[in-house]
Amino acid sequence: MADDLVVVSNRGPVSYRVDDDGKLVPRRGAGGLISTLGPALAARAKGGRTTTDTWVAAAISKGDRRAAAQDPAENEGVRIRLLAVDEDAYRAFYDVISNQTLWFAYHGLDHRPLTPSLGRAWHRAFEAYVEVNRAFAEAVAEEAPDGATVLVHDLHLSLVGGHLARERPDLATAHFAHTPFCWPDGLAVLPAGRRRQLLEGLAGHGAVGFHSSRWERAFLACCTESEVAPPATFVSPAAVEPADLGAVAESEDGIRRLAEIEELVGDRQLLVRVDRMELSKNVVRGFSAFALLLEDHPELVDRVLFVACCYPSRESLPEYAAYRDAVFAEVARVNERFGPVIDLVAEDDFPRSVAALCRADVALINPVRDGLNMVAKELAIVNRRDAVLCLSPEAGAWEELGGAGALAAPPFDLAGTADALHEALTMGADERADRAKRLREAASARTPTDWLGDQLRQARRPAG
Amino acid sequence: MADDLVVVSNRGPVSYRVDDDGKLVPRRGAGGLISTLGPALAARAKGGRTTTDTWVAAAISKGDRRAAAQDPAENEGVRIRLLAVDEDAYRAFYDVISNQTLWFAYHGLDHRPLTPSLGRAWHRAFEAYVEVNRAFAEAVAEEAPDGATVLVHDLHLSLVGGHLARERPDLATAHFAHTPFCWPDGLAVLPAGRRRQLLEGLAGHGAVGFHSSRWERAFLACCTESEVAPPATFVSPAAVEPADLGAVAESEDGIRRLAEIEELVGDRQLLVRVDRMELSKNVVRGFSAFALLLEDHPELVDRVLFVACCYPSRESLPEYAAYRDAVFAEVARVNERFGPVIDLVAEDDFPRSVAALCRADVALINPVRDGLNMVAKELAIVNRRDAVLCLSPEAGAWEELGGAGALAAPPFDLAGTADALHEALTMGADERADRAKRLREAASARTPTDWLGDQLRQARRPAG
Repeated sequence: MADDLVVVSNRGPVSYRVDDDGKLVPRRGAGGLISTLGPALAARAKGGRTTTDTWVAAAISKGDRRAAAQDPAENEGVRIRLLAVDEDAYRAFYDVISNQTLWFAYHGLDHRPLTPSLGRAWHRAFEAYVEVNRAFAEAVAEEAPDGATVLVHDLHLSLVGGHLARERPDLATAHFAHTPFCWPDGLAVLPAGRRRQLLEGLAGHGAVGFHSSRWERAFLACCTESEVAPPATFVSPAAVEPADLGAVAESEDGIRRLAEIEELVGDRQLLVRVDRMELSKNVVRGFSAFALLLEDHPELVDRVLFVACCYPSRESLPEYAAYRDAVFAEVARVNERFGPVIDLVAEDDFPRSVAALCRADVALINPVRDGLNMVAKELAIVNRRDAVLCLSPEAGAWEELGGAGALAAPPFDLAGTADALHEALTMGADERADRAKRLREAASARTPTDWLGDQLRQARRPAG
Repeated sequence: MADDLVVVSNRGPVSYRVDDDGKLVPRRGAGGLISTLGPALAARAKGGRTTTDTWVAAAISKGDRRAAAQDPAENEGVRIRLLAVDEDAYRAFYDVISNQTLWFAYHGLDHRPLTPSLGRAWHRAFEAYVEVNRAFAEAVAEEAPDGATVLVHDLHLSLVGGHLARERPDLATAHFAHTPFCWPDGLAVLPAGRRRQLLEGLAGHGAVGFHSSRWERAFLACCTESEVAPPATFVSPAAVEPADLGAVAESEDGIRRLAEIEELVGDRQLLVRVDRMELSKNVVRGFSAFALLLEDHPELVDRVLFVACCYPSRESLPEYAAYRDAVFAEVARVNERFGPVIDLVAEDDFPRSVAALCRADVALINPVRDGLNMVAKELAIVNRRDAVLCLSPEAGAWEELGGAGALAAPPFDLAGTADALHEALTMGADERADRAKRLREAASARTPTDWLGDQLRQARRPAG
């Protein structure tokens, strides 16, 4: 039935660990996809529907693999089908192609005079990517009722639509891209045949959705340059579920973290950033720009504290370890020069991050490229002090927030970023209140259910 | 008069040194622009015209600065006006903006998680770039007869057209881009205001020309994204002057170099590359792919010699020095593993490069991006052994040569490049002859005069 829904993503809404007694213990899955798609599906399940939605996801942990061998569990009204694939194939699919090749290409993170350098192992990894995508498509083909709608998420699963179009032409499908899409020179790292295979796989979905119209235009330019017939495309930025965020802020942990930050800040202004320690997030330049601000305006040295919540990410990759080192080195340099002006906590502490967003006077979110950047919307919604947002125009969220009160923090431009920070830190109360109100309205204009609704409306049977 | 011509470029056709007696000694200017535009202008001067063409160029050397203070000299029928600007401003214009910012952006050479990082000094350098461009425009405005045609060349002089359109709306102008143009994410390194200023400066010319339609499409996409009204555009790949190249091959030096190479090669096959030691040329991956070829096909170890003529480039920039080190390290690694299979000469020895192109059995030209790559055309014209060309699809010349017998050497793909080399080295004589013939025809299809003619035809008064 048209109302039947199958969601497909690498990470699922539930992950399992094996406890000391050998029993499977479920816990909520991590990641931005879950935090926005989860509430929307839960709301759908409560809506008195007669069908049950299915979520197909990879079995990642040991516990997941055991769970995959059992009957699908149900979680918040959604049936969860975990798919176990060969572990080596999964690693090649996940680490090499998804995280290193596609993530780097879409965000422009390579040093192209030297990286990437694709040898025989890379070509085998791409074969594994194709195989894992086919396995997902086969699982969906088994699970999906006649004429169901299938929503495929993120860069891991670019090729599911192409397989499904051949095996199950009755299904309406849509792919949603959570990352930016690069323009054609970004995709040039892929050999031409693989580039075309990737684009044809995406174009094999009935429609392809993006957080921002810029990624949509870049994707269409890639299709044109590779002579791939483009699919229908749509733009639908994901949205924050305010209730979830509010619950964290009001939790015991959240309240304690906020008190700790208050004590740390004292009567200074609080500048905040919250990100993964990720090459695309531009943490180093953020600190360099802050140092330039203090150099230009020494009167601010004792009046501003920069609290940075940068939780660890992909630390097994050498590029990420090197970047982490560069971040720490820059913090040490700045604090040595100006005194303790930066407080960097490089741990995953979500209540502390939410508390920092609540208490911020100014937030700096300056990625070199970012599919959307949900933190920008979270700040707009949970902040209690009319915080000024300095946001990179290279974040997808700029399309919604740039005209709604955010200041531009040009990511490669230390001087421009320092100027934006100065404007934010010295802004009068009325302008702050006006901008914060507009930001809040823009960030609250849509809900996770709106976002899911767009995908359901846009999904269709692929052409051809 | 419409037949009057003013050419504008950073480097001119003649450079001066001061000899021991304090006299100015002219010598032919260096660079690809001179080698293709020079012959076309000389041919024009011999055509019995009644007007004299003028070439406006920067005074770069000490001798040039002295010459700039004197009356313009004439060289091969072209009047040469050298323009001396403030030395600090010139360095900022040339080193910081032209060579580091724009060259890196257009070729995609930055490691964007960390570079570039634009501080106050960069903003001052951009001001200098604007000023030097204005000085060039003012010199042209002084020199150009009523209704003359002005041809502006290369990334140093993006803004000349915009100034001229205001000061001398009677002039027909065209800008020619010798580099690739990047898609919009490449140009994102520039702060939005500077990005728009750059594009508006280019769009201020009556027309903008490119070596390849891909750079044209990328430029137009940048205009769209920055909401700049695009100018007329055209595609006209530059061409080789075969007589000049033949003269070098037949010279005493050329003949001696060829004999030296013959002795070095013996009865092995000769694989050749000729480039500047430049981050965009992909020298390291070329050697890595060769090593992969020998690993896959050990029978070739004693049967192929790789002669690489990589002359020095911009060695004062740390990025280039580091790249040079990486090249030498890779050569050492490969030769240690397989014996002396790579002969790298990192000196500027044009007769040797031409001799290597004459003698090559296979040529590898695999840039990560390249505006055109004239060496690919030179090989096709001077080679005497039906050499197989393995060419990067990211070189502008691919548009002319890719369908005319060149094999694809995908620049980021070691495995694909090794496979192309294997195909080239094991190709039968008939197929080699057929491909070499088609390559030669494609590379000879146009002359420098055709290229200049396209620019003259396309130049027009700017719109608006």
